[in-house]
Amino acid sequence: MSEILVVGSVGYDTIATPRGSVEGVLGGSANYFSFAASPFAKVNVVGVVGSDYTDKDLNKLKDKNVNVEGLQIKEGKTFRWSGKYEGDMNEAITLKTELNVFQDFSPDIPESYKKIPYVFLGNIDPELQMEVLDQVDSPRIVGLDTMNFWIDSKLGSLKQALKKIDVLLINEIEAKELSNEPNMIRAIEVLSQWGPKAIVVKRGEYGFVLYAENKFFILPAYPVAEVIDPTGAGDCFAGGFFGHLAKTEGSLSMKDLKEACLRGTIVASFAVQDFSVRNLETLNMTKVEKRLEEYKQVVQL
Amino acid sequence: MSEILVVGSVGYDTIATPRGSVEGVLGGSANYFSFAASPFAKVNVVGVVGSDYTDKDLNKLKDKNVNVEGLQIKEGKTFRWSGKYEGDMNEAITLKTELNVFQDFSPDIPESYKKIPYVFLGNIDPELQMEVLDQVDSPRIVGLDTMNFWIDSKLGSLKQALKKIDVLLINEIEAKELSNEPNMIRAIEVLSQWGPKAIVVKRGEYGFVLYAENKFFILPAYPVAEVIDPTGAGDCFAGGFFGHLAKTEGSLSMKDLKEACLRGTIVASFAVQDFSVRNLETLNMTKVEKRLEEYKQVVQL
Repeated sequence: MSEILVVGSVGYDTIATPRGSVEGVLGGSANYFSFAASPFAKVNVVGVVGSDYTDKDLNKLKDKNVNVEGLQIKEGKTFRWSGKYEGDMNEAITLKTELNVFQDFSPDIPESYKKIPYVFLGNIDPELQMEVLDQVDSPRIVGLDTMNFWIDSKLGSLKQALKKIDVLLINEIEAKELSNEPNMIRAIEVLSQWGPKAIVVKRGEYGFVLYAENKFFILPAYPVAEVIDPTGAGDCFAGGFFGHLAKTEGSLSMKDLKEACLRGTIVASFAVQDFSVRNLETLNMTKVEKRLEEYKQVVQL
Repeated sequence: MSEILVVGSVGYDTIATPRGSVEGVLGGSANYFSFAASPFAKVNVVGVVGSDYTDKDLNKLKDKNVNVEGLQIKEGKTFRWSGKYEGDMNEAITLKTELNVFQDFSPDIPESYKKIPYVFLGNIDPELQMEVLDQVDSPRIVGLDTMNFWIDSKLGSLKQALKKIDVLLINEIEAKELSNEPNMIRAIEVLSQWGPKAIVVKRGEYGFVLYAENKFFILPAYPVAEVIDPTGAGDCFAGGFFGHLAKTEGSLSMKDLKEACLRGTIVASFAVQDFSVRNLETLNMTKVEKRLEEYKQVVQL
């Protein structure tokens, strides 16, 4: 059993989907990731919140045994995102992004975090992702997520960051945009030449593509008949993925990465069944393993 | 080893994709299906062509041991479709459809076809699909495909036809439209209550969802790095699917349907690697089985 360091956004979301709407709920990549990974292994979070972030919300992380020593509390307002989904909910439509204290975020890694072997660089400025790497002491596996905003505005830094990490976890649309290849397989072949030893493309309800050791492993998502809110599903995939690697002290072998992807897809399937991190607050390994068995029945040859 | 009866369009296509363009090439659901199924089992086709349909093109079917006794040759021009694809080629954009002799098509099933056990009703007017069923003698398994045009214009007849068939093979977008359910799983649950004993939803590069015996079987497509022309991929899936059922005298059991889906996805992957039916003209069981083994490596847990 090992530990995980995650850096990313911690914020409040306002979300409308065909199944309802919520205001000012827990959100941000580091929040989703932490809740998702917490049933597997101890998570140590790095991020920033404003003085309006409530103790109650902070305690929700602590209750999941998440270490918040690296979570800075700054004067001002917490990061806020507002978005909506329509129809099949496969695409988030951003209504408003208020960076607030996240605007000037500079990751400061506590001493106690520096030897953590599993590091996930959530979707933030690639320059900050590299600042994190500069402060840690030879982690075993480093994962990185990114989004179109950084592809458009900081492509140079992003490509530099990709040279320093092990696993790129990225959405399908963004993988195609980043590689400038409309074909998924080609896109992965291009990205793999930029540095990452493994690539995981997240495809929402269509599951994932894992590429490692020159081989592909492709599976659909666990079928969910009632998607309530797909926000954060990608971060939850990453949480289950790194959670499993940390729990089992996994390596970059195809074998270990495959098992990690299976947990990623299962954890993400729980996340989308309620708004925000609600369904993750009660997630445990028994539920994960039970659904994993059901999933295997669906994809078993 | 058994035989297959297929009814559908036989025509000439003009297609433009990011990888090139072709004019007046073999097309139509029955053509694609017949080429796709022919390595597996004997196909008997029902359809109509105009007097401009060349002997050379007819001989291509005969060369694959396809029985064209049920293919009517009428005064006039053959059905023609013109379309294009952009970007990731996941969507066909129709530029022009000329029904020509297909406009007044009335399926006339030859005596020698009437006891064929495996029947595939390609994407044509649901009333004509039912006319075919009225003329055949208790087939073992009947499959049906349809499209948005019939969902919009002949929903009543289509729902009637669904009561008379065994397997609905349908595109994802059309499954959602037909059921009026944006969620795939719910869509299938709705459609399964309308009559079909099994449902296969075709998802292009995302593979397929099979629903039978109250269980799901979901897998991605075989990964193809060079998609040249996705036209007819769904019909080729159906061809491989029914080809395998006929070859093995398969039943409606989940076990047999799963194996059929695997062949469907493999045959479709060959089809998209060249324009029209070109790559199917040289397809054989050795190639199918070899790629199936490769595919299993990609999706194996």
